[in-house]
Amino acid sequence: MAGVFAQLDLTPNRLEQARQARAARGDLIDLTSSNPTAQGLLFPPEVLATAAAAYWPARRYRPDPRGDLAAREAVAAYYARRSPPLAVTPDDIFLTASTSEAYSLLFALLADPGDNLLVPNVTYPLFEYLAALRNLELRSYQLDEERDWRINARSLRRAADERTRAILIVSPHNPTGAIVDRHIATLDLLGIPVICDEVFAPFTYGAPATPPLAALHSDLPVFTLNGISKLFALPDLKLGWIALNRPARVFAPRLELLNDTLLGANALSQFLLPTLFAEGEPFVTTMVSRVRANITFALHQFANHPRIHARPPAGGYYLFPAISGWDDEEALALYLLEQGVFVHPGYFYGEVHGCHIMISALSEPALFAAGIERLCAALA
Amino acid sequence: MAGVFAQLDLTPNRLEQARQARAARGDLIDLTSSNPTAQGLLFPPEVLATAAAAYWPARRYRPDPRGDLAAREAVAAYYARRSPPLAVTPDDIFLTASTSEAYSLLFALLADPGDNLLVPNVTYPLFEYLAALRNLELRSYQLDEERDWRINARSLRRAADERTRAILIVSPHNPTGAIVDRHIATLDLLGIPVICDEVFAPFTYGAPATPPLAALHSDLPVFTLNGISKLFALPDLKLGWIALNRPARVFAPRLELLNDTLLGANALSQFLLPTLFAEGEPFVTTMVSRVRANITFALHQFANHPRIHARPPAGGYYLFPAISGWDDEEALALYLLEQGVFVHPGYFYGEVHGCHIMISALSEPALFAAGIERLCAALA
Ligand SMILES: Cc1ncc(COP(=O)(O)O)c(C=O)c1O
Ligand SMILES: Cc1ncc(COP(=O)(O)O)c(C=O)c1O
Repeated sequence: MAGVFAQLDLTPNRLEQARQARAARGDLIDLTSSNPTAQGLLFPPEVLATAAAAYWPARRYRPDPRGDLAAREAVAAYYARRSPPLAVTPDDIFLTASTSEAYSLLFALLADPGDNLLVPNVTYPLFEYLAALRNLELRSYQLDEERDWRINARSLRRAADERTRAILIVSPHNPTGAIVDRHIATLDLLGIPVICDEVFAPFTYGAPATPPLAALHSDLPVFTLNGISKLFALPDLKLGWIALNRPARVFAPRLELLNDTLLGANALSQFLLPTLFAEGEPFVTTMVSRVRANITFALHQFANHPRIHARPPAGGYYLFPAISGWDDEEALALYLLEQGVFVHPGYFYGEVHGCHIMISALSEPALFAAGIERLCAALA
Repeated sequence: MAGVFAQLDLTPNRLEQARQARAARGDLIDLTSSNPTAQGLLFPPEVLATAAAAYWPARRYRPDPRGDLAAREAVAAYYARRSPPLAVTPDDIFLTASTSEAYSLLFALLADPGDNLLVPNVTYPLFEYLAALRNLELRSYQLDEERDWRINARSLRRAADERTRAILIVSPHNPTGAIVDRHIATLDLLGIPVICDEVFAPFTYGAPATPPLAALHSDLPVFTLNGISKLFALPDLKLGWIALNRPARVFAPRLELLNDTLLGANALSQFLLPTLFAEGEPFVTTMVSRVRANITFALHQFANHPRIHARPPAGGYYLFPAISGWDDEEALALYLLEQGVFVHPGYFYGEVHGCHIMISALSEPALFAAGIERLCAALA
């Protein structure tokens, strides 16, 4: 068989089978949810309903290969309000069907089959599939846990070669919570375009804000990715975007043609976007507060725990504590499942020294607290 | 520069520049529109508004890698009503962000970089870009104008080789209007998976109906593509689908993983789909009637014209007449532009003997009639 995923084993893995069996027995607390709408975090429905009602009477399809202008203006204004501000014009914004589609367009824009991309050694699992779609190789650079998961510049340099077409950075990082808060000299040195995923930008914890990487690196082509899935908890409405900083503008004509080939972004979500920015702030604040309170609660519970070693994250939804006394992450996750709490084993996110688990702090607070207590008891 | 479209010349072509200049002078009739919403063909806004209003209060994101079940049930029921019916279950349906995205997923599913796909020698221009996205070669098979643009089976056989991964068929065909109305022995012989694009299925003219190719070829893997862009004149809402016939089911697990990687279909459009099928029929009938009346008018005007030679199409939106007395399609299109009517030159759709123009019969009827009269006068 030709084509992507041709060699993949599609039988469900042992952990997923165990999860299903354990869930069927009842009273399982799932601490892995990344879906805000499943955790009661719902963008005010009346705002959405009112804004959407205005769409239908006047609807006309006027496809713009970069996306609707009013929506792009709202995105550009958002970057002007960031700290530090990122100077982009509406022409530097490309609207896509999601951040995932944005990745897929950029991989096609920048790389040919057989080329490679640099990704952190622990990261968002979708990269593997998105890279396979274009027959690209992923090469890892290291994040240093003892330096709060900061990027190891030396390993970044070592990973790059003549077929490296882009460096992927996630900030705030999923799942470690690290935020890139300063210029990384190695990036300038390498001069390779950077794709920076900032979907968790509003979710800060230890850090005061998420500085746009493109603003820290104004001499390097940086493609900033974001969308409404995390920012406004609207993964169902399928809207993402790519923002080009000044050095990335040379890619704009080809990116426009690429976006025009798929034209994936639906017009209603584009129409809603200015309203989301204008009226979404109180909701975003509520959501960020919940995540912060959950993280604080968990860190407090973990503080004197003999086996759970968590670092306060700079931002993001997640905790990625190291667990001592265990060396098999799958055995650990299976044991915790038996005890009634579902977490992701660290290897879901890549290869990293030691034994880690991933916990999402998005969960409904009472459930989250019960899950954390169960986790602490199980590992005591 | 690496990546897709790296070698492309992005300066606007001569015809597009001339069109812009001529449009600025006013009184230009555009006979090329494929956008129903720009031609006053608007799905009843009150139906959309009422159905969409029910989405917001209960919205929850529950991503299914094949798409929302109720929507897939509506699609499966649509195929059961076709003539002849196509037997598919909701599990055979994959919802995508558009037909274009459906193509892009299938190209990744079936082919590796360097493989090839067979396409008609005159066809939908987007194929070139979609194939480039996956570094695939397109090889042409011939449509025979004198046999009403039927597929030339011998040229199909000749075009296939050991790296051919799919045969693309568009029925009703854009822009010739041919409908594949019977079993094609060569397809069975070759045994290569077929992708059949039926976005113009409801638009029949000479033919009584568009038989689903997958029903005519029940022993061959056939992927049937469609979506709401043409069927319900809703290109802005971004929903397409792939229907697998029984032999194509072996591809389902990998297609599911592919669709899960991008998850491009927005949930609101999926939610609306059952309503579109349930309440859209009167609107579809109006739209089909307009296209038929426009085609009849044009054929009548062309009937005794010395230079315009049109064949009554079996279906579709378009006319693709041959023009005698000219041999340069670009010069012809530029001349017609000067005379105040914009048509596409045949070469936009591929390479075919003689001189052709493409006319869309979707246009608002008074404008269409004026355009056709101007065209006839200009070529008299
Ligand atoms: C780092 C990261 N980027 C992107 C996404 C997905 O964004 P979208 O829904 O816009 O494709 C996720 C979702 O979990 C994510 O963790
Ligand atoms: C043959 C054909 N297929 C597909 C499409 C586009 O469908 P979608 O808007 O669902 O991508 C078109 C649009 O003109 C077309 O002509």
